[in-house]
This record gives sequence, C-alpha cells and structure tokens, in this order.
Amino acid sequence: MSENTPERSTERPKARLPRGFADRAAAELAATRTMTDAIRRTYELWGFEALETPFFEYTDALGKFLPDQDRPNAGVFSLQDDDEQWMSLRYDLTAPLARFVAENWERIPKPYKSYRFGPVFRNEKPGPGRFRQFLQFDADVIGAPSVIADAEMCMMAADTLEALGIPRGDYVIKVNNRKVLDGVMEAIGLGGDDKAGQRLVVLRAIDKLDRLGIEGVRALLGTGRKDESGDFTKGAGLNGGQAENVLRFLGHDVAGGHAEQGSGAALRWLEERVELSETGKQGIAELREISAALQAAGFCDDRVRVDPSVVRGLEYYTGPVYEAELTFEVKDDEGRPIRFGSVGGGGRYDGLIARFRGEPAPATGFSVGVSRLQAALAALGRHGEAPVGPVVVLVMDRDRTGDYLALARTLRDAGIAAEIYLGSSGMKAQMKYADRRSAPIAVIQGSNEKDAGEVTVKDLVQGAEMSKSIDDRSEWIAARPAQVTVKEADLVETVRAMLAAQKG
Amino acid sequence: MSENTPERSTERPKARLPRGFADRAAAELAATRTMTDAIRRTYELWGFEALETPFFEYTDALGKFLPDQDRPNAGVFSLQDDDEQWMSLRYDLTAPLARFVAENWERIPKPYKSYRFGPVFRNEKPGPGRFRQFLQFDADVIGAPSVIADAEMCMMAADTLEALGIPRGDYVIKVNNRKVLDGVMEAIGLGGDDKAGQRLVVLRAIDKLDRLGIEGVRALLGTGRKDESGDFTKGAGLNGGQAENVLRFLGHDVAGGHAEQGSGAALRWLEERVELSETGKQGIAELREISAALQAAGFCDDRVRVDPSVVRGLEYYTGPVYEAELTFEVKDDEGRPIRFGSVGGGGRYDGLIARFRGEPAPATGFSVGVSRLQAALAALGRHGEAPVGPVVVLVMDRDRTGDYLALARTLRDAGIAAEIYLGSSGMKAQMKYADRRSAPIAVIQGSNEKDAGEVTVKDLVQGAEMSKSIDDRSEWIAARPAQVTVKEADLVETVRAMLAAQKG
Repeated sequence: MSENTPERSTERPKARLPRGFADRAAAELAATRTMTDAIRRTYELWGFEALETPFFEYTDALGKFLPDQDRPNAGVFSLQDDDEQWMSLRYDLTAPLARFVAENWERIPKPYKSYRFGPVFRNEKPGPGRFRQFLQFDADVIGAPSVIADAEMCMMAADTLEALGIPRGDYVIKVNNRKVLDGVMEAIGLGGDDKAGQRLVVLRAIDKLDRLGIEGVRALLGTGRKDESGDFTKGAGLNGGQAENVLRFLGHDVAGGHAEQGSGAALRWLEERVELSETGKQGIAELREISAALQAAGFCDDRVRVDPSVVRGLEYYTGPVYEAELTFEVKDDEGRPIRFGSVGGGGRYDGLIARFRGEPAPATGFSVGVSRLQAALAALGRHGEAPVGPVVVLVMDRDRTGDYLALARTLRDAGIAAEIYLGSSGMKAQMKYADRRSAPIAVIQGSNEKDAGEVTVKDLVQGAEMSKSIDDRSEWIAARPAQVTVKEADLVETVRAMLAAQKG
Repeated sequence: MSENTPERSTERPKARLPRGFADRAAAELAATRTMTDAIRRTYELWGFEALETPFFEYTDALGKFLPDQDRPNAGVFSLQDDDEQWMSLRYDLTAPLARFVAENWERIPKPYKSYRFGPVFRNEKPGPGRFRQFLQFDADVIGAPSVIADAEMCMMAADTLEALGIPRGDYVIKVNNRKVLDGVMEAIGLGGDDKAGQRLVVLRAIDKLDRLGIEGVRALLGTGRKDESGDFTKGAGLNGGQAENVLRFLGHDVAGGHAEQGSGAALRWLEERVELSETGKQGIAELREISAALQAAGFCDDRVRVDPSVVRGLEYYTGPVYEAELTFEVKDDEGRPIRFGSVGGGGRYDGLIARFRGEPAPATGFSVGVSRLQAALAALGRHGEAPVGPVVVLVMDRDRTGDYLALARTLRDAGIAAEIYLGSSGMKAQMKYADRRSAPIAVIQGSNEKDAGEVTVKDLVQGAEMSKSIDDRSEWIAARPAQVTVKEADLVETVRAMLAAQKG
C-alpha cells in the first residue's frame, strides 16, 4: 500500500468500543457460565421455569419512560420503528415479564413461576465500573397473593448464594415490608396523596442511614442538614415526635437504645416501640407469617431475617421487600477493606401487571446482579479455574501438514481439545503461541520421529516450572526435561496421563 | 373498578410485542441450551476460545451501513448517542470481531481463534418466520493465511453437526473458492472494475440455479428470461461461448454432460473443462490443498467435499467459501417433503480487518444459523426431551404451610426439583396446576397422614396413562391407582424410585 495515499488513512474508521460497553474474554465468560448454571439449577430446584423475552419492547409497554419528548432516550435506549412507534431496549427483566404475563394471561399456569437471564441496557452516563449493558438473573412468581411466596424468594436467594460457594455466615437475606413503612407515615400524619412530596423527603433521608448515621438522618427529618462542604439540604420538617417515630422504626430509640438483631427481636421492637396505622399492623402480621415460614423450613435467622432498615426500591413495591447482602470483608489491592454489600434484591409489586389488565395481579420477584456477584466471587477466590488451552501440535514441516492434522484428530476423537498451529511462523513463535494460549502440552513430530513411528509429547506446565530452576542452557538441553518420546499409538494415553498429572 | 371510567382503559397500554420479535418458552430454551453446549464443546475441542463483544458498536466501526443519512436505520437498528455519535446494534458476529481484533491486535495470540454466540439484530420488514432478532454461533481464525485454516473450519462444521446428533450421510459440507469464480469471469473478459455491474448480473443468475435450473440460468446469462407471469428479466448479455464457460463452471457442459460428485471429480472437471485465468488456477490449487487436508484427516468425501456450485456471500469473501447443508428430507404437517438445506456457512475474508489497520489480515470464519438448525433438529426428532416440571407439594390446609415447606425442602436437599403450590385455590385447581407444569409427582399430606407421620406420593405420569383405560369412576376411586402412602422418612426414596420408573 502506498504511503502517498493519505485519504485512505483518514477514511479508515477507528477501532473502538462505544463508551460504557466492554468486551469479555474467555476466563470471565467461563466464570459467568459456571455462576449462571448454578443459579439456574437452584431456580429449577425451586420449581421455576425458563422464559426469554426479546431485547426490544414498545416503549409504552415498558412503562416509566413514556415518550413525552421527541426522542425519549432518558435512561433507556429508544428508537422509532418505521411505523412511527417507539421501541426501547429492556432496562430490566421485570417490565418485559409484566408485558408477557398480561399478553399470555389465559395460556400460562397460575401461579406462574419464571426465571429470566440476560443483558439489560441503561442509557446513562458511563463512568468507571458503570456499564450501559450488564447482566441480570431474575425469578418471579405471578398470581400468588400469599406472602409465603415472598418467604420462598428469600429462601431461594439464600440457597442460590450457597450454591455459588458463599458459606453460611458470609451472607444474609434481609426482609422487610413496605406496608410497615407506610404505617409509620400514616401514624405521623403523612398518609394521603397530598403528602407524597413530604413522604419522598422522608424516604430519601432514611435511604441515607448507611452514609450519614442516625444523627444525619435525624437532621434531615427535621429542619435540614449542613454537610462538610457547607451545603445545606432542606429537611422534611417533621416535629420531634414525628421524627422519633421514624427513627424508632429504623431501630433507634431516643435514649440511644437499639433493636437487637434477629427476626423475633425486630418484630417485637416494631410492635412495642413504633406507632403504626392499621396498614402498618397488617405489614407486621405479614412479616410474622414470613418469619414462621422461614422457621418451618429451617432458614431463620442465620440465613434470612427480618430487618426494618431495608427500604429498597421504594417506588413500585407494595409489600415485602428483600435484599441479599454479602457480609464478609476483603482487602483491595492497597489493603483497604471492602464490603460488597447488596448483590441482589426484590419485593412484591402487585401493580405492574394491573397497568395492562386493569385488575391487580399479585407478583413478587428477585433479581441477582450477576456482574456484581461475579466480582465478589472473584474476591473470595471462587471465580473458578482459568480455562486450559488446547494441546498444540507443532508444524515442523509444512509439507507434512496432513500428518499433524491426523494427530490432532486422534486427540479430539479421544475428547482432548487439540489443534495444529495455523500460523506461518517457525518453532520459537509456535512455542510462544502455545504459551499465550495456555496450552498444557505441545506435540512434536520431526522427520526422524515420523520415520520411527514416534511422537514427542512436551509438558508445558512442568516445563515452565523447571525452566525457573535450571539456569544453564546446555544443562537444559541435555536434560530435555518434561518431555517424552513415545510410539504414535501411545499418543492419547501419554497425553491423558500428563493432563491428569497437571491437574492433580 | 367502575365501568364508568372509560379514560382508564384508554390510558392502559396494550400488552403486545414489537413486530418481528418473539418470546421463547422453557422447552425451546432447553433445546437451544443443549444445542449451544454441544457446539461450544466441539469448538473448544478444536482449540477455539470464547469471546463476547457488546451489543452496540459505533456505526462507522460496524461498516457497511455508514451514516450517510440523518437516521442510518437501513438494515440495522441505530441511534445517536448523547455525544452525537451514531451507534448500531450488531447485525452479525463478524463485524464486531473485526473491530475487536483491530483494537487488541498487540494483545491477542496469533493466529487468534475465537468463538462467539448470541443474538444479532436486523432492522428489516418482519414476515412469517422472519425475525428481527435471532441467534448466531460463529467461529473464526484470524492471522492464518494458509487455506488449511479453511479446511479446518469445514471439518469442524462436520464434527459440529455430528455432535448435534445429525448422522453421517444426512449432511454435507460443500467447499468452493471465490477465486475460481473470479477466474471464470476474468477468462471471459469480465474482470476489472468497469465490469462490476455485469459481473453482478452473472452472479445473480448463478445464484438462481437451484430455483430455475440450468436452462433458466442460461437465459439469464444471455439476453434475458420471461417468467410464467410474463415478466421479463434482462440478462447479462453474454455471448454463447462466454455463457457456456460459466455453465461448465457450474458443472454442466453443452452436450448435457454433468460433473460427477466428489472432490476429485469436481477438481478434474474444473481443470479440464473450464477456461480459467491465473487467479482461477490459483483457486484450484488452493482447493487441491484443502482436499488433501480433508483426505489426511479422514473427512473426504462423505463429510466434506469440493462443490463449485457454492457461491454464497459473494460480497466480502476473498477465497474459500463453505456451506453446511442438511440433505435428509422430512415431511411437513401436510405430508409434503421439505429439505432444510443450508444451516450455516462462511468463508475467507481477508479485507475486513484491513479496514481498520490499513494492512491485510487473513481471516476465515464459519457461522451457524442456530434457529434454523434448531428447527431442523426438531424435525429430526432430536430436539431433546421436553423439560419435566417440579414435584408439587399440595397445600391441603393453609395453616400447615410450614409442614409443606419442610417437605419440599427435604426433596430439594436431595436434588429433586420441588415446590409447594403457591396459589389460593382448592384441590382440583392444584391438580390442574400440577398438570400444566408437567409435574411428574404430587405429594399429599392430609391431617390423617400427618398424624400417622405419613405422606402420599402420587405418580401423575402413570395416573394420566391409567385414567385413559379406567372408565368407571367408582372403580377408579377403589383402585386408587398410581399412588402410594409411605412414612415421611421414606419420602425421598419413594419419589426417586417413581421418577426413575417414569424415565425408563
């Protein structure tokens, strides 16, 4: 190609990924597959069946992001079809399920228990570790009004984490009830549509408990709070008694007392210390039913427990809410402790399907954040083994390619991953290639070996070990370590024995 | 809800799927997973490693569909990012690979052998059986200039079809070389950029061989052809000698003679009967090298063979092209014979990566049409078994839910999929639910059984069989067929034995 054609290089597109998207290589994909296989097996053990919906839905059917602008791309990826209807890429696996259930209501068994897995898309500003395409793994029960269904979701979440190799004690599933929070609001006079704005300020304050501590929340429930930078956040304007009730709901009384951990203690605290409306009392009764179910099935309190501080996903949940939390600590590269915290959660959403059908359909579901969980498993050292590459048959003489093809086929027929080197380079490059592929073994047949009906089998794992200890090149060559020359008929057996020795 | 609120129903979104997209249920998904696991295992046996690229690419990096309009949505789904750059959903798995390889050229082993699996998207007019989202499973070798790599792709395709349960003889992998066709064109004076238009008409005529037969193609190579409806298609305007050379290339001579099937016969025919330029002769030499490799590895001619009639994907292929064809016939619902024909194919494309890098990078790849192949396997009766539902523990008394939860857990702990019925309906509805879930067994514990420490295990598969033969209801009740009452401690063992008997 001539250097005198500058227009060619300006025409050339630059090979780059769109912001917020990532390629995934073999080791990461193998770890994801091991994980999702374990999750799938657990969900199927619990009687859930697979469902897959397409990546696109009509924007109005997805809900939440209705096209009130010309390009309704806030939060979701949307485009207009040639019949002018707006379509969006799914942003979660729940909204498409609601559409599916409403569309196929007469055909599905009820209750309908499905699991779904796959990528979802968010049209958000990408940042470090924040991706616009990521994996979710969901399970939902539709048509089961009883909170036993919610209790089961919590138990299944616990089973799932253990199936992934997270030991009991290193995780906890926390369950709460949206109705208890509603009951607190109503008891302090914050019920009703006209108080929605004030309720939202209270909810935001509660959500900051982890970050600001109980005094920070107290300030935000009252007149407001000035942060370290001097910025002032206006509060919810609750009076002292109102604020105390909210704080007691969070497990803190005015004298500095705390609710003890555990379902029984938490429920007693709520009943004895927190002022609740009728809705709130119903919420407590439901949590008692959940707690009894957990007890009967042997999941209480070490695996699943009632915890009023869980206030997740406040917008569309209508009853029990639950969250899976990892409780172990690991150190990052600089030795600082990191906690992974929440790796999934869900709750009861009785209104989503009613959007389509006009009548309520009880529903509860749980979503696993696969990417987050995978990072946590990697930190625990439970990422699975790195994939082993194929046995590489070296090409010593291009005219004898047929022989190498036949050797590779013999190995494959015995179930051993094998290939011939397909490039055009010499021995040194071929050995380097085998190394980059993490090949466990190289098979070599020069013309002398061919004439003798033999083949040399070289252990690349042991060879790499030994090369660390042998410095002298001549000594190395004399020893010919980690390789053996055998009859062609013994190739499979020799390779098998070498692979077994490497594993164990 | 009042009937007097019509505005509610107009506000309600309609639950419907966008045109050209489909939901997929458990049985279909299980069959896809079985298939893709077999394909993956075969590709890994051949030394390919997994890669996943994201669903979005920059439109200019994908190529082919450059944004020369405001909304470049012809054929692909595209949208503009908030930095004004156009992004598109991938329409195949090759263009994103070219981007990946160009972007990571220094980091990857060379040759680079990857496989990729997942949905791709086409923004086309949907029709019956034509979807806008479908699955592909690709394997590619980058950086291997030798046609041995192409021969391996063909052999791997053959191994893949057999791994999927398609017997030898029911498929064939056909291989040809784009250079031979180029050589035919050049020999009849149709080389050069100025003849591109005429070449395209010739290619279109060749592509119709299957549908129109040799005389139809002959007419289209000459002045043109009038079809049954009287419509006239203008021909390529070749003279008699030019047309005969093209027809001989397709294996038909002027005297009505045919090339015999088989690589050797096809190559001899091409060499002896077809006028070819130097390019064409190079193409033949490459096919001879491929044929020798197939022979050496034992794939010739029953599994893979040279066939000059394969002219697929003529736009971007630069060398060998190959196609996987199913050769068995099945009958459709009305007894008419159907042949599935092509279920995948590929070829050498040395130009795609050069788009980014400015220097050529040899590449060859094979793509399996997963959905098409799945339909063929279903027709062969090799779709896999329908998934079996969970054992259903019936809820006889809502107050004893804890007992049922414990029974289900006992089964799950033994690795048996089990659930309690989560709805609010009575016995009859519960049995109907178990039926719709394809539950193999129902577990029943009434209060008498509970008091006796017993449980009833009901074989729903055998029960359904027997209900066909027993007409008399009283006889049925007296016989209590297909169920057994055992001690609670024997539950797992009883269920296991019953499941084993059902299987076989």
